[in-house]
Amino acid sequence: MDQNNIREEIGGIVNKIIADYNGGKNIDAVDIFNKPDRNEVIDIVNNLFSVVYPGYFKDRSYKSYNPENGVAVITEDIFYRLNKQVSLALDFCKTRDQMCEEERKEESYRVCKAFFEKIPAIREFLETDLLATLDGDPAAKSFEEIILAYPGFIAITIYRLAHELYLLDVPVIPRLMTEYAHSKTGIDIHPGATIGKSFFIDHGTGIVVGETSVIGENVKIYQGVTIGALSTRGGQKLSGKKRHPTIEDNVVIYAGASILGGDTIIGKNSVIGGNTFITSSVPADTRVSIKNPEMEYRSAGGKEPVKEEIKQSDEWFYII
Amino acid sequence: MDQNNIREEIGGIVNKIIADYNGGKNIDAVDIFNKPDRNEVIDIVNNLFSVVYPGYFKDRSYKSYNPENGVAVITEDIFYRLNKQVSLALDFCKTRDQMCEEERKEESYRVCKAFFEKIPAIREFLETDLLATLDGDPAAKSFEEIILAYPGFIAITIYRLAHELYLLDVPVIPRLMTEYAHSKTGIDIHPGATIGKSFFIDHGTGIVVGETSVIGENVKIYQGVTIGALSTRGGQKLSGKKRHPTIEDNVVIYAGASILGGDTIIGKNSVIGGNTFITSSVPADTRVSIKNPEMEYRSAGGKEPVKEEIKQSDEWFYII
Amino acid sequence: MDQNNIREEIGGIVNKIIADYNGGKNIDAVDIFNKPDRNEVIDIVNNLFSVVYPGYFKDRSYKSYNPENGVAVITEDIFYRLNKQVSLALDFCKTRDQMCEEERKEESYRVCKAFFEKIPAIREFLETDLLATLDGDPAAKSFEEIILAYPGFIAITIYRLAHELYLLDVPVIPRLMTEYAHSKTGIDIHPGATIGKSFFIDHGTGIVVGETSVIGENVKIYQGVTIGALSTRGGQKLSGKKRHPTIEDNVVIYAGASILGGDTIIGKNSVIGGNTFITSSVPADTRVSIKNPEMEYRSAGGKEPVKEEIKQSDEWFYII
Repeated sequence: MDQNNIREEIGGIVNKIIADYNGGKNIDAVDIFNKPDRNEVIDIVNNLFSVVYPGYFKDRSYKSYNPENGVAVITEDIFYRLNKQVSLALDFCKTRDQMCEEERKEESYRVCKAFFEKIPAIREFLETDLLATLDGDPAAKSFEEIILAYPGFIAITIYRLAHELYLLDVPVIPRLMTEYAHSKTGIDIHPGATIGKSFFIDHGTGIVVGETSVIGENVKIYQGVTIGALSTRGGQKLSGKKRHPTIEDNVVIYAGASILGGDTIIGKNSVIGGNTFITSSVPADTRVSIKNPEMEYRSAGGKEPVKEEIKQSDEWFYII
Repeated sequence: MDQNNIREEIGGIVNKIIADYNGGKNIDAVDIFNKPDRNEVIDIVNNLFSVVYPGYFKDRSYKSYNPENGVAVITEDIFYRLNKQVSLALDFCKTRDQMCEEERKEESYRVCKAFFEKIPAIREFLETDLLATLDGDPAAKSFEEIILAYPGFIAITIYRLAHELYLLDVPVIPRLMTEYAHSKTGIDIHPGATIGKSFFIDHGTGIVVGETSVIGENVKIYQGVTIGALSTRGGQKLSGKKRHPTIEDNVVIYAGASILGGDTIIGKNSVIGGNTFITSSVPADTRVSIKNPEMEYRSAGGKEPVKEEIKQSDEWFYII
Repeated sequence: MDQNNIREEIGGIVNKIIADYNGGKNIDAVDIFNKPDRNEVIDIVNNLFSVVYPGYFKDRSYKSYNPENGVAVITEDIFYRLNKQVSLALDFCKTRDQMCEEERKEESYRVCKAFFEKIPAIREFLETDLLATLDGDPAAKSFEEIILAYPGFIAITIYRLAHELYLLDVPVIPRLMTEYAHSKTGIDIHPGATIGKSFFIDHGTGIVVGETSVIGENVKIYQGVTIGALSTRGGQKLSGKKRHPTIEDNVVIYAGASILGGDTIIGKNSVIGGNTFITSSVPADTRVSIKNPEMEYRSAGGKEPVKEEIKQSDEWFYII
């Protein structure tokens, strides 16, 4: 193959791709220079773990003999970096009036200050989540194991941080944070959800908690639980409406249950069995389960029903 | 502990491991030097996001004042790197005759040229997917949020890129790309599937779209949907046969539905409710739901049925 | 904004965060310097892939013409690094008596030696898993594709490595390893589970295999399968008890099935259909399926039942 030829051909292909950028597509943003950077936001999230769990996560950039000094350096560093990203995100938001450069800087500083001032309060919640996790899982061996390895605990941590930025009206960044958690853990909690203390998630893959969900204190949920909406045939017209359920204090929701709709309230102390499907409110102190599901048992050939009846356990169907 | 002793012991263990490589296992490939590199393929995929969504993803290697210059540099760079990986993958494929070095280079260049020439056409599809996502999700706040954060949109992007390489008969690499998407998003779309314009995925964790699926335009699917095969008792004998369903235009498939089998066709405009289980064709303009699922409600002690009857919503069971 | 002011304000916020570290929370570990490092453990796991699948994974640090030399260097390197992490983890475990520095070093060396001596035996299992995967999936095109891309195979590999460290009583690290696999694949296998040869997982997202599960040889499982516990109302009191099922040889468990409880045994050669829910033992050579699930079919308006009856396939409901 002739190298000159190849160079020319590739140049031609590249030019066609660049020409295509001028077709007025929404997937193009060549004219906008300054946007939040996904990788930078993810890096900030990872560093925030060192701040909220001091001593548990090693930092490779700053070596210091006094860990508190290390945390001070990291915290200031994240403050400046988050400030930068928030300022880009504010600019970013098309529904606000464009604030002038100076106003935007002041607003992003105000937001970051408010966020970092909230960290002790966030840590108070996380401490209760940690205790709830140890208490809830017989396989949990130590606090360290939970903090370093449990996907539910990682997802809750990132949600609690993102939720504060959501409350401060920062666009894009809170969702970037919780989608990073979703990617790492399979747990999809919208930063707009409201979740009380002592929240416990086990296993977690497939969990969805929608934007307008309200969850009380001391709630436990397991893998595959959806706290979701009914039909969104309304599309963007439903934006901002309460579309997701309210879960009161001390409720347990076992694996695979779906609880749906903005008017659905699960009363306190109720227990929602595995694989249930709930679209209307449940009073307090109630246990809900699927009717003992009927199975068919046949011999290997697939023709003969098995003679002896096989009964399912009388245990409530709490899948874990 | 004697350091010499330790060194000797470790050396002995290493030797036993290396000796084990000569046992003729399929997991060994010590004699083959040149193979596609998983990390390199993942890096190429990440850079392709800068090419298909210019301006949305920052590149850290190339700083340029004209973003189009940046894209030109990245595009040429990926061209050369993909070319290298494709050439290794062609060599790799055991079912083809070994092509001589020169032929392989020519084939991989031909493949890469065809792939990059397809990028404007791929971008046309992605623009429709973006609009479908904003339209379908009341929680979506901006195009930026969708492009930077939505797992469904990330999975569709990677699938559309991988599918073109699949159509060009490149081995291994398309699957490496979609499995990277699977790892990031929990959405498992085989690169062999055929998917029309304006495809929308919400939440996404647990979605499976099989190799021989055919999906029309303007289709929406939610978390946990399987578009899958019935029994594969045939194993490798089924390879290449149509084992997965056809979904026609404008179909909506709500969370947790399973649609199975190569002869199953979901007719256009049909709506498939959450948690349904479908193994035969559904005519056009049909709504399918599970029968109102029966639940048991008991008081906290678990013995007493709750007196007042709790009725599920009359809403169709569209889980989101 | 006055830069001095800003510096002072940020300093004040940082001080409040640091002051909060002295509140006696379990999420604080500022006084403990030496802990296992999650990122280091993940890096060790990634390098172990080069050791168990020589030639399949490129190493970027060590270039060598003889791949066996490369493996020898990597193996020694991981040995020393794992030794360090195990020694930190042993210290870490609060339920053991604090061993003195020297004893801890000896114990971690003993553990690492035992682990690396097991690698040929682990590789023997992995070879059978590879063959089972090719055999089980009509979409599998080559061994290379499986080793480089299949999430089920990645999860099994990491589980088999972590399980050996679990058997050697190493705290924290085995779970860090399997949670890394969970994060990458959506497959959550506890390192304590016991799993025989020729294990095959397809798709995989949402799979949970609990700590005390026992799985025989030649077992296949699909996405969304839970091999789990019934209620853990006992919490930490259940720690150590057998809470998860036993699956005998040659069993197939299709997508979405839940098999629950420590006394539940699935007898050999049985086939468990998709979406089933099993809380008591099933004899050998049995096929279990959900009763043909009833669906409602209505015309698009949602009011009119579709006239012609739509029958589900007579195929057993094996979702894939």
